[in-house]
Amino acid sequence: MLKSIIDNRENYQPGLSIDCVIFGFHDNQLKVLLIKTKHSEEWALPGGFVPVDEDIDQAAVSILHGRTGLEGIFLRQFSTFGTVKRNQDHFSNKVLEFYEIPLEEGKWYASRFVTIGYYALVDFLQTVPQPEGKNEIVEWIDHDAVPDLILDHKEILDKALETLRMELNLIPVGYNLLPEKFTIPELQKLYETILGRKLDRRNFLRKITAIGILTKLDEKKSNVAHKAPNLYSFDRDKYNEVVRNGLHQGW
Amino acid sequence: MLKSIIDNRENYQPGLSIDCVIFGFHDNQLKVLLIKTKHSEEWALPGGFVPVDEDIDQAAVSILHGRTGLEGIFLRQFSTFGTVKRNQDHFSNKVLEFYEIPLEEGKWYASRFVTIGYYALVDFLQTVPQPEGKNEIVEWIDHDAVPDLILDHKEILDKALETLRMELNLIPVGYNLLPEKFTIPELQKLYETILGRKLDRRNFLRKITAIGILTKLDEKKSNVAHKAPNLYSFDRDKYNEVVRNGLHQGW
Repeated sequence: MLKSIIDNRENYQPGLSIDCVIFGFHDNQLKVLLIKTKHSEEWALPGGFVPVDEDIDQAAVSILHGRTGLEGIFLRQFSTFGTVKRNQDHFSNKVLEFYEIPLEEGKWYASRFVTIGYYALVDFLQTVPQPEGKNEIVEWIDHDAVPDLILDHKEILDKALETLRMELNLIPVGYNLLPEKFTIPELQKLYETILGRKLDRRNFLRKITAIGILTKLDEKKSNVAHKAPNLYSFDRDKYNEVVRNGLHQGW
Repeated sequence: MLKSIIDNRENYQPGLSIDCVIFGFHDNQLKVLLIKTKHSEEWALPGGFVPVDEDIDQAAVSILHGRTGLEGIFLRQFSTFGTVKRNQDHFSNKVLEFYEIPLEEGKWYASRFVTIGYYALVDFLQTVPQPEGKNEIVEWIDHDAVPDLILDHKEILDKALETLRMELNLIPVGYNLLPEKFTIPELQKLYETILGRKLDRRNFLRKITAIGILTKLDEKKSNVAHKAPNLYSFDRDKYNEVVRNGLHQGW
């Protein structure tokens, strides 16, 4: 695929790429979707180049689909990365060698690239990636166990997580990530997993209740030894309203 | 200057620009720094191209300095704009004509450009711009009276203001924008000016006090007919701490 892109480089914006950070949550685990080619030991974020005739938001969707098969994921742009040195390392030449691309032809690819970061948070059990070709591997990797990544992809991943954590102060999360009926401890675990730290149970209960997006159901969780916790669901109208207007209703 | 950039286009990242949205506040007025060349009726955000040997954050600082003479302004990246059509209009050709640049040579400039937006909020009385050359005009223009802007610059400006307003929910503002000693109504006016709407006096007082960044001084504002309001100053240590940790201490 790289060879075909370089052969058709006039169809792509020069010096511009897009990288996607796809976080996956399920059952108290936070994972990240990573990709590598079989000839490489190094993992990368799924990314690619921007066709000259595609808006960047659309290109992000196509690139993610092309590399991982994923569709229908709401990607949000979070930051653009553009230090001079970010792709001036050995990686480019190794890849050119592998694809038997002469250095002269590969110049386009080896030149300075600025990359636009997009991110999303999905339920990883319901999001099953397909690699692009048989030389590629796509996997959900535990966030805690992410290995070295190529280029500045670790920095891009960290910045995406920082953005996601900041976003918890602005809008609620949870819809599509929890079962339809859930307990407050399950919701708290989601927040704790994203934040990477424990939260005080009573504070969390007070704050999450104050938002007004939860409906207390007339059911308790079954299969629990004793003191079965109450079940809740999201009030979708309220939830969407708070997503629109923000958690703190501002000033 | 455009001519010299096109003549030396190999020194610039192809298809990439930076635009700066500089908001100015003083005495209940919100202004925006805009620029135009004397041959044009249309205003623009101060922007420019990215030297191949400069990191984008550094390029933003150089570009702002080059176009407006401003220095020492803390610019924050907020979004990257990259629809296919954003610069595919008549503007390019008109500018090429003005500079007597042949269309063929101007192809680099007329091709698709993706632009990275940076913004800042400063005290406009203390921020005096200098145009780059005698053909350029740089002015603080009332935000309420911003005319049509070139390309998608209005969209970029709107997005920057949206980001600034969102930021009011995350960190305090005011330092360097108000006199050292100020009244609560003055601080409220700053928030109202940024938000573009009136706030409830008692709610504002309650919320702003709860943040814990204000020191109530043993002085009242003079030159006020009766019921002189109390003066306050920012507790710099607390203020910086809240800037670091966020207004809502999260979850």
